[in-house]
Amino acid sequence: MERKDIEEKYTWDLSKIYQDPQEFYHDIEVSEQLLDELTSFQGKLTESIETLLRFLSKRDEMSMLVSKAYCFAHLNCDVEPKNQEYQKMLATVMSLIQQSSVKLVFVDNEIVENDEKVKEYLKDDRLKSYRYSLKNALAFKPHLLDKEQEELVAKVDNISELAEQVFDSLRLEFEDVEVNGQKKTLNQATLNEFLKNKDREVRKQAYHHFFKEYQRFENTFASTLSGVMKKDAFYSDIRHFDSPLAASVFNDDVPTDLFFKILDKANNEYRYLFHRYNHLKKELLGLDEIYNYDLSVPLVKSVSKKFTIEECFDIINQALTPFGKDYLAIINRAKEERWIDYYPTVGKRGGAYSSGSYLTQPYILMNFIGDYNSLSTMIHELGHSVHTYLSSHNQDYINSNYRIFVAEVASTVNETLLINYMMDHASSKEEKAYYIYEQLENCVGLIFRQPMFADFEHRLHEMAKNNEPMSSKIMTDLYGKLNQEYFGKEVKMDELVGWSCYYVPHFYYDYYVYKYTLGMTVALAIVKRILNGDTQQVERYLNFLKSGGKESPVDLLSHAGVDPLDDAIYDDAFHYFEDLLNEFEKLVK
Amino acid sequence: MERKDIEEKYTWDLSKIYQDPQEFYHDIEVSEQLLDELTSFQGKLTESIETLLRFLSKRDEMSMLVSKAYCFAHLNCDVEPKNQEYQKMLATVMSLIQQSSVKLVFVDNEIVENDEKVKEYLKDDRLKSYRYSLKNALAFKPHLLDKEQEELVAKVDNISELAEQVFDSLRLEFEDVEVNGQKKTLNQATLNEFLKNKDREVRKQAYHHFFKEYQRFENTFASTLSGVMKKDAFYSDIRHFDSPLAASVFNDDVPTDLFFKILDKANNEYRYLFHRYNHLKKELLGLDEIYNYDLSVPLVKSVSKKFTIEECFDIINQALTPFGKDYLAIINRAKEERWIDYYPTVGKRGGAYSSGSYLTQPYILMNFIGDYNSLSTMIHELGHSVHTYLSSHNQDYINSNYRIFVAEVASTVNETLLINYMMDHASSKEEKAYYIYEQLENCVGLIFRQPMFADFEHRLHEMAKNNEPMSSKIMTDLYGKLNQEYFGKEVKMDELVGWSCYYVPHFYYDYYVYKYTLGMTVALAIVKRILNGDTQQVERYLNFLKSGGKESPVDLLSHAGVDPLDDAIYDDAFHYFEDLLNEFEKLVK
Repeated sequence: MERKDIEEKYTWDLSKIYQDPQEFYHDIEVSEQLLDELTSFQGKLTESIETLLRFLSKRDEMSMLVSKAYCFAHLNCDVEPKNQEYQKMLATVMSLIQQSSVKLVFVDNEIVENDEKVKEYLKDDRLKSYRYSLKNALAFKPHLLDKEQEELVAKVDNISELAEQVFDSLRLEFEDVEVNGQKKTLNQATLNEFLKNKDREVRKQAYHHFFKEYQRFENTFASTLSGVMKKDAFYSDIRHFDSPLAASVFNDDVPTDLFFKILDKANNEYRYLFHRYNHLKKELLGLDEIYNYDLSVPLVKSVSKKFTIEECFDIINQALTPFGKDYLAIINRAKEERWIDYYPTVGKRGGAYSSGSYLTQPYILMNFIGDYNSLSTMIHELGHSVHTYLSSHNQDYINSNYRIFVAEVASTVNETLLINYMMDHASSKEEKAYYIYEQLENCVGLIFRQPMFADFEHRLHEMAKNNEPMSSKIMTDLYGKLNQEYFGKEVKMDELVGWSCYYVPHFYYDYYVYKYTLGMTVALAIVKRILNGDTQQVERYLNFLKSGGKESPVDLLSHAGVDPLDDAIYDDAFHYFEDLLNEFEKLVK
Repeated sequence: MERKDIEEKYTWDLSKIYQDPQEFYHDIEVSEQLLDELTSFQGKLTESIETLLRFLSKRDEMSMLVSKAYCFAHLNCDVEPKNQEYQKMLATVMSLIQQSSVKLVFVDNEIVENDEKVKEYLKDDRLKSYRYSLKNALAFKPHLLDKEQEELVAKVDNISELAEQVFDSLRLEFEDVEVNGQKKTLNQATLNEFLKNKDREVRKQAYHHFFKEYQRFENTFASTLSGVMKKDAFYSDIRHFDSPLAASVFNDDVPTDLFFKILDKANNEYRYLFHRYNHLKKELLGLDEIYNYDLSVPLVKSVSKKFTIEECFDIINQALTPFGKDYLAIINRAKEERWIDYYPTVGKRGGAYSSGSYLTQPYILMNFIGDYNSLSTMIHELGHSVHTYLSSHNQDYINSNYRIFVAEVASTVNETLLINYMMDHASSKEEKAYYIYEQLENCVGLIFRQPMFADFEHRLHEMAKNNEPMSSKIMTDLYGKLNQEYFGKEVKMDELVGWSCYYVPHFYYDYYVYKYTLGMTVALAIVKRILNGDTQQVERYLNFLKSGGKESPVDLLSHAGVDPLDDAIYDDAFHYFEDLLNEFEKLVK
């Protein structure tokens, strides 16, 4: 579908950000002036608390404008990648971000060099909202290089993002898949549909046509994937971290233990539950041998219910009733004020995300096709958007950005409330089984699959750290092996499974994937209490959303009532999966 | 054609380098040990002349081995890119090169810090063969950072090569071209054939099918092309050069003037001659309007002579007779000892090159199809290989590597001798016209087209230096504009001309292209004298080949009898083109 064929109300309204390019370039100019003013603080940043305060508030001012401009450019690029006007805007704002990071290198150095003075200043309530960020800056002292080296590092940033850029820019095209004699279009959006097809030949063909394209470009993908790992290893090395993992968790302000705890729970302690589920699949599908491309075939008759966008909002409003009117009012605004770009169109970026800035609405990109997955994605992204909205409206700019850690909680709580609502309102045993099945699949994705991803990513990071060769053969062999262990002995691997690692964008996001598992685990704990009628939990949860990023993730979550370092919440999550599996078995066997 | 279908004598024999992978990995191990020994010199490198000498000769030892291993891996990868064993070897050796550059960072710093002492040492003849390289190291003083920063920079090298890597790894596939109702395969090797087709529809279709693929991946190519420019700008910036150009010419040990002289001569002073040639094309082809994709249509009946490989060698031997027996004996060895991989095969890298190392033969990769161009390419690459051979056999390792500047002289002298031989031995007026036409085209490529490329590349470098946005639109617009000026008003540009910049690998080689113009110019001067029977020039030229890289390019060329800074040699080259054009006009009009 072309963009022009979509009804306006189903597209996002970015004109609220800028009416025309002149406004965009005006903000760029103002930001450049602000940057000049900011650089004039060099050498005297900490000379008085007033000076520091003036600097920080001016920096916020610039940063807000730049984020707004970036938001406009990247949202537009994602729906119209061929529009070179938007590409130019994106390049302009990226170049400004790069310049500002080089020019403002002195900031962290001057803060760290005058740490005693800054610690004194921090006692003053005028710096109240900057406390958390300044404390983080001070804690970075052991990893901060001298000013000349920091300037050099800031310049490296300009050339180190290439791996992600290239990965993002590579849009592959796939050979058609033949279904009942008819050629059907294969792409990232339709792959999953083909993998659900009852005809194994269709699944196999789709899998092959899809991943052979990744194989065709394997040397390119090997360059970008190893490139991003080498980049992370480079930064961790020069900043005297023990490893890329240590650098990543430092940056997230969480302990390293958390990472290994999650991997250990999912990949060792509880993996047998996933294997049990795969065994059940083989049995229910009546297959002599089961391949990895067979595992998406629905185990129950799909509730082929289709949802209009309006119906989705009705259900979402029902499912999120526990959060109260204020929360729902924001959801309503998302619909009425066109924060969402719903439908897939030619060239539009696949998948879904929520993205905004302090000075804009939190926009949502979707590829809505009206199935349950679309509904679930919508409530997921709305979770992010409401989080952003509440954070922006309750926190100063500096504390409004929250980390992925807490982000995935907000979205997963919503998804979990939705599936519970659907299970509860199922009109038949079949429908109930269907939603349980959906939740089992969801759990597999978040609490089993992501930790396997995390293991792979961690090994690649270690290879890069140790300067080991990272050819396509080495990486695809490793990925094949990890997948075999992951799926278990009963599942046969397709010969192309190794190349499927090139398909996962999250490997470019520096230890991102395990945070999904944490998000799901925490969300399950929160939802359980909310559904048990714990109104205090609702209150705490909403306060957590309003807190944005004013504290460390562990603190924020603890205030929401959940300790992410507690073994019990992981055990609970895997037992939840086990209970669900038991219930499902009873329903379908 | 598959590799296995090629007669063995037409493939290169890499088994002379290593019989099996074990030998390769053995050399890697030895190199690693040598590297460990080398690092133990840290802190005492210049403590005595004996120590310095021991270090330098050990470094040569390691470097020779690593080059040998690299040679084996990259040659194999280029003919069998899917063979992951070779990809692994390449990754292994690249990783070792990276490690060694990090570990040996101290070398330049210790030399520069002790420059007075080193200058004293240099008077001692035991350091004779290291004089030029050590003088270069000392001259780098203003651009050398302190040791900590240099270590950081060496680590950056590990992540800064990504743009080239990705560009090299991207192998596009193109839609077929319809010729007389038949679908024909379009690729980098066949494009030029289609552009010579008499049917404009075929030319247009080939041009479109080819460059629309580059357009399809434009954001990827824009990332890599701007990426490499940003990389060059980064290094020039941190090393306190005025510009990427200044850094490049410093590295080549030539003055900046040379670059601007070449561009000015070709792009301003003499461009009218190229426009005159294009006008003649329009006239001779009888076209009302002429497009850029029309310019390759032969102006004269092609001498559809096909040459077997054996015939090529006969002609090459004749054409290079002035160089004498010793030179020809090396050419004969190239044939007999299988230094050359002749035929195109599935997956094999396109184009042609000569590549070897001090411990191996100088191998040649070709995509031989038996036409005059194949013959010409063969003599060109043999020029490089003989240069490498003579340099390796007459210079110590440290002085054996020569720069591109002088490299392109060795190849172009051969090409020019060949075309002169063909003109002289033409059996008819038509045949003579054909070879003059070939030489006109050759001149266009080297003395007109490369300086236009150089202008484009220089502008991109300046953009990167000034942090200007470099979107695909900006770069393709600029390239379109420069092409229009280059071809002249009479030639219409196809709408895709802007995207053809993504096709040129040389833009990834840091101010490479203008060196072709220099090579051609110098070669014309040398050949003119040789053909005039100047035997002293032959002697001087052979000595130049044997000199390898023991001096600066300007010195090496001056010893060969040509001053590259002299305006007259450029004027001569363009007048040679004019004379050729006059002669051609007389023959065909």
